[in-house]
Amino acid sequence: MDTFVVPQAGAGLDAFFNAQGIAIIGASDDITKIGGRPIHFLLKYGYKGQIYPVNPRGGEIQGLPAYASISELPAAPDMAIIAVPAAAAVKAMLECAAIGVRGVVVLSSGFAEAGPDGAVLQAELVSIARRHGMRLLGPNCLGTISVAQGVIGSFSIILEQSMPPAGHVGIVSQSGNIGSFAVQNIARRGLGISHFIATGNEADIDVADGIAALAEDAQTRLILCCMETCRDADRLTRALDLACKKNKPVVVLKIGSTEQGQAAAASHTGALAGSDAVIDAVFRRYGALRVNAIEELLDVAHAAALLLPAGLPKGNRITLLAASGGFGIMMADATVKAGLALTELAPQTKEKILQILPLAGTNNPVDATAQVSARPDVLQGTLAALMEDTHTDVTQIFLSLSLYNTRLRGVYMKALKDIRYRYPDRLLVVTSQGPADAVREINDLGIPVFPGIDATARGLAALVRMGQLSALPESTSYRGLVEALDSDAFRNEYTAKEALAAAGITVPREAVVTSADAAAAQATLTGFPVVLKIVSQDIAHKTEIGGVLLNLADEVAVRSAYEQIMQAAAKHAPEARLDGVLVSPMLSGGNELIMGVSRDPVFGPVVMVGSGGIYAEILQDVAVQAAPVSEKEALAMIRSLKLFPLLDGARGRKKADVLAAAQALTRLSEFACRHAADVAEIDMNPVLVRPEGEGIVVLDALLIPRRADSTSE
Amino acid sequence: MDTFVVPQAGAGLDAFFNAQGIAIIGASDDITKIGGRPIHFLLKYGYKGQIYPVNPRGGEIQGLPAYASISELPAAPDMAIIAVPAAAAVKAMLECAAIGVRGVVVLSSGFAEAGPDGAVLQAELVSIARRHGMRLLGPNCLGTISVAQGVIGSFSIILEQSMPPAGHVGIVSQSGNIGSFAVQNIARRGLGISHFIATGNEADIDVADGIAALAEDAQTRLILCCMETCRDADRLTRALDLACKKNKPVVVLKIGSTEQGQAAAASHTGALAGSDAVIDAVFRRYGALRVNAIEELLDVAHAAALLLPAGLPKGNRITLLAASGGFGIMMADATVKAGLALTELAPQTKEKILQILPLAGTNNPVDATAQVSARPDVLQGTLAALMEDTHTDVTQIFLSLSLYNTRLRGVYMKALKDIRYRYPDRLLVVTSQGPADAVREINDLGIPVFPGIDATARGLAALVRMGQLSALPESTSYRGLVEALDSDAFRNEYTAKEALAAAGITVPREAVVTSADAAAAQATLTGFPVVLKIVSQDIAHKTEIGGVLLNLADEVAVRSAYEQIMQAAAKHAPEARLDGVLVSPMLSGGNELIMGVSRDPVFGPVVMVGSGGIYAEILQDVAVQAAPVSEKEALAMIRSLKLFPLLDGARGRKKADVLAAAQALTRLSEFACRHAADVAEIDMNPVLVRPEGEGIVVLDALLIPRRADSTSE
Repeated sequence: MDTFVVPQAGAGLDAFFNAQGIAIIGASDDITKIGGRPIHFLLKYGYKGQIYPVNPRGGEIQGLPAYASISELPAAPDMAIIAVPAAAAVKAMLECAAIGVRGVVVLSSGFAEAGPDGAVLQAELVSIARRHGMRLLGPNCLGTISVAQGVIGSFSIILEQSMPPAGHVGIVSQSGNIGSFAVQNIARRGLGISHFIATGNEADIDVADGIAALAEDAQTRLILCCMETCRDADRLTRALDLACKKNKPVVVLKIGSTEQGQAAAASHTGALAGSDAVIDAVFRRYGALRVNAIEELLDVAHAAALLLPAGLPKGNRITLLAASGGFGIMMADATVKAGLALTELAPQTKEKILQILPLAGTNNPVDATAQVSARPDVLQGTLAALMEDTHTDVTQIFLSLSLYNTRLRGVYMKALKDIRYRYPDRLLVVTSQGPADAVREINDLGIPVFPGIDATARGLAALVRMGQLSALPESTSYRGLVEALDSDAFRNEYTAKEALAAAGITVPREAVVTSADAAAAQATLTGFPVVLKIVSQDIAHKTEIGGVLLNLADEVAVRSAYEQIMQAAAKHAPEARLDGVLVSPMLSGGNELIMGVSRDPVFGPVVMVGSGGIYAEILQDVAVQAAPVSEKEALAMIRSLKLFPLLDGARGRKKADVLAAAQALTRLSEFACRHAADVAEIDMNPVLVRPEGEGIVVLDALLIPRRADSTSE
Repeated sequence: MDTFVVPQAGAGLDAFFNAQGIAIIGASDDITKIGGRPIHFLLKYGYKGQIYPVNPRGGEIQGLPAYASISELPAAPDMAIIAVPAAAAVKAMLECAAIGVRGVVVLSSGFAEAGPDGAVLQAELVSIARRHGMRLLGPNCLGTISVAQGVIGSFSIILEQSMPPAGHVGIVSQSGNIGSFAVQNIARRGLGISHFIATGNEADIDVADGIAALAEDAQTRLILCCMETCRDADRLTRALDLACKKNKPVVVLKIGSTEQGQAAAASHTGALAGSDAVIDAVFRRYGALRVNAIEELLDVAHAAALLLPAGLPKGNRITLLAASGGFGIMMADATVKAGLALTELAPQTKEKILQILPLAGTNNPVDATAQVSARPDVLQGTLAALMEDTHTDVTQIFLSLSLYNTRLRGVYMKALKDIRYRYPDRLLVVTSQGPADAVREINDLGIPVFPGIDATARGLAALVRMGQLSALPESTSYRGLVEALDSDAFRNEYTAKEALAAAGITVPREAVVTSADAAAAQATLTGFPVVLKIVSQDIAHKTEIGGVLLNLADEVAVRSAYEQIMQAAAKHAPEARLDGVLVSPMLSGGNELIMGVSRDPVFGPVVMVGSGGIYAEILQDVAVQAAPVSEKEALAMIRSLKLFPLLDGARGRKKADVLAAAQALTRLSEFACRHAADVAEIDMNPVLVRPEGEGIVVLDALLIPRRADSTSE
């Protein structure tokens, strides 16, 4: 068993980003081979450091002196690329370790993805890396590109055409193909790249490493991340936390968001995938923006990269300007559907616009009418009026096909340049199709140009969310004690409620009795009406066997109910071990929620809240988050429910005590962390949420222990 | 008052589509003016017919002999373009009529959109057209282009670059800008256009005319329609019905789908807009595919235009093929989110693929692994296996960036050509970025190439929906008698229920009483328990004033309740005219729905069904359709509710009698049509839907009459 410590996320990745020398093990003259392509690209794009081709043949490779073995290298390169077959990789790795290489990229496949034998080889690579303090990228990966440094440890197809432009977007992707696609398209939109890291099998370096390293990297301002699976929750959350603190926005394309996608992911990587809903919630917690499609990733990156210098939008108020009423309507539809707000212009803005354009519509969208094409100089004045309007956060202007008209293009460019110069801090985006050079010219002013109305709305909505998410997270991980839970807590409803009550969660005042007399006495103590429920570790569905009787109004009814329940249990569950009958107050008046805890294979205890009754299931009306959750997070979870308006005073109802519900959820999440070693699942269903100020009460509860064979998980 | 008949939708549009001669009134030498541009374009793109420039100056215009007035033309052209200011247009229109012009395009603005004076001029144009049997396009429109015929009656910016290619896509758009944008982008995707019609102010020719004319047009196979407002429901539904019958798919981009968009539309066109939800339902009824964004319109048109020759998909089963696991997962996510199905491959297909690609993943998505790039000849065999698999309707292949690699491109093209030749009837789409000429080469094989994964899924989902919608609608418009409704029906809950009962809708057996004794007697007749409710035309919210008492178990309770209700009414509504107290059976056991009728300004009576209680409002859980609705449509409306699972036996509940609910909805819709002259609104809330076979019963009902001043609507 390896006892070496796993390096901190991001540590040592400068060996790749700033490699001062690069060895290629398995170097080839054939520039279509993975041993030939990196050398070809390093030469083609003018890498400034030393390139050391290694091949037993020696001689010369692609015009460079080749070395027969690694041990013959005149100096230790920072980085080595291993392009030999899997079977030979372990020896190469050992030799790299011997001369002090700091980072190794294993491009070759044939490791864990190929079966058990490959997995053994892969474990061997990791063991060598750990023993010698090296970092390992891959195996079975597309490697790494650091643009400004000219460092290439990759055979990506995108390098065949050209090196991507240098810039501020850092990209880390588990899949090399997806990462390449993103790099290619980011470059095509005229944006620059800092580093590209493709992690492949993630034997050592994973996506979290990439995020952390990019968060620390001075060139990188925006981090794009494509991931399939997360294997280590702590590592990922620490990296996201670092990116937060370094103020580097993270945009995540996490694939496998549907069941079918997850099934495909599982068969593809063989990795145990955590629940998509949980990872989604964790991204939200750390202000990372989750996107669902690669097009959305590109739109968001595009907008963010260009707008970041002027800052993210302060709010979600968009003002739309179009020369065509029809397009104005479409823009309004798209803006509202994306969750953005169309606010009214300030009265003085309307006046200013009407002075320039007497026939303009000064509602939002502003309809500048065809005058803006006939006399395009008015655009400048109209935009200036909007830039000075403090009722808006972003102004969007639609130019349709106008940039194809040379005369119009000239005047529009002049107006946009002027506006950018006069109002450098105001956010302006253009939606237009036009010749590529016109689009680039506007982009170069720091004004993003989107090709479509929907793309613009998506991009802006994402930036607004980013702005809203930028506050640092309140809770990260459980810092309290981990304690054993008395196994009696798992025994029945009563003991489960006792354990939860000890954690500060309100349960009814109730007792288990074993005779009709005791039931009547307890009911008198409780106050009528009461509920009687059978208590047995062997009866999961109490109602179905007739084990629950509601609304019992007096002692006579209670005595009779006791006998009735005992008879029902004897009839329908003759083998069940009975602990007695629970006497509870009959509570009503309020709304029902369900709360619970389950165990995610990656993130551990996960807390859930959902609408009561059957609605959580029918409407999929639930919210989840990795435990523990702060009260603020718990409140946000409850407020996100589709049926939240029921708790919030819809149609003249009394407002429910959602604050108390949030506190209960927080306490439940802390309870789940404290007893994570023992508890597999918790079910509090229903939780009665009473009117404001009156708190909550858990009407039924169930604790399920982790099985002995899963405690080592 | 004009008594001429409005022409049937689509009649006479051949004057534009096939114009044998074209006059331009207000012709100009300046090719940037709207009187100069059409002549310039007609000459540039080689129009074969006669061009007659008309200008009082006479002489020569753009090298053609000009005529000083229309009366001097040597022959009557089919079509005239009016490009003179609004004030001069009426005279020009009269002169066109005098020489027998059949179709007039008025490009000029300054009509209804500019105010009351312009509206008068516009009405004059319409009157002339009607009197002389001419058709009028515009005014304030971008005109018309018929590509194969070289007919141009437009000044659209898109003609500055080139004439769009001729083909099978017909486009009709209220907005000239949106239409131009669509034409430009359809052309950019390598698809051909038959006709483009921009209807502008729609004084005569409207979008319905365009749909009908394109439905009859032999060149057109697919109709794209961009509309802002519908003013004439019958005209639109008849055009959609015609397109159905001619088997021409219609794709509609109806803008103004949000409240804000509708507000922008109203201020833009000044037209009274019908409810977006109703028009949405009407499109669905006629199998027209509604899209919500111009990008989606283009994606759908693209897929449809290329796939139509092979037919629409027979079902929604998609098989995905990717060379990268990561992209496979993304494709799976996008496919499932678009509502398509990933089915399992047939066992023999899996075998065939594994023979070619031993390491392939043969789940769906099929992971062809990097082998497909290393040895791309295997693509052909793999695709052939999928083409022969009868478990799939469409095969989607992802080529990522491979087409940029010359070697791979060659082999892929060969494989695709071979597959297209061998399996001409199987549906295959490619998702790829690549050089434009490679994309065109694949498109030319009849294989649509989509640039993105989401775009592919959207396009395919739309085609599948088109295939499903293609059945002819059952109900079109109300063909029964229109009858007056006794005004007594509007008096109170009891009379409203009586009127609905006469229409075949089940209501409780109940009676209005005016004494405690009568209440007790009636309750005995009804059977206990009963409900008592105050009956008054002046008390809308019975419960709030204490006018409803439930669950009355015996005569004593009923007597006392009667007195209590009368006292509450005297106290809280002393002025109200009381009709008495309604004695109803206390019914429960079942699910609640709400049903109703409202009046759309364009579509007339509209029927609605929603979830019961507060849920319709909180979840916006309602479905609407223009009345009347067939039972099949009514059933589909009920099944579309988010809370339908409650009626459908979720979690072991009894199934509700949804068939009876559908029948009630159909009867309600017919009732609303029969009494459309008198009824403004109907509210049946709640409707108790009992278990299967036990029917429904309307527990409360309200009829609201149309006000006298609105009956001319």
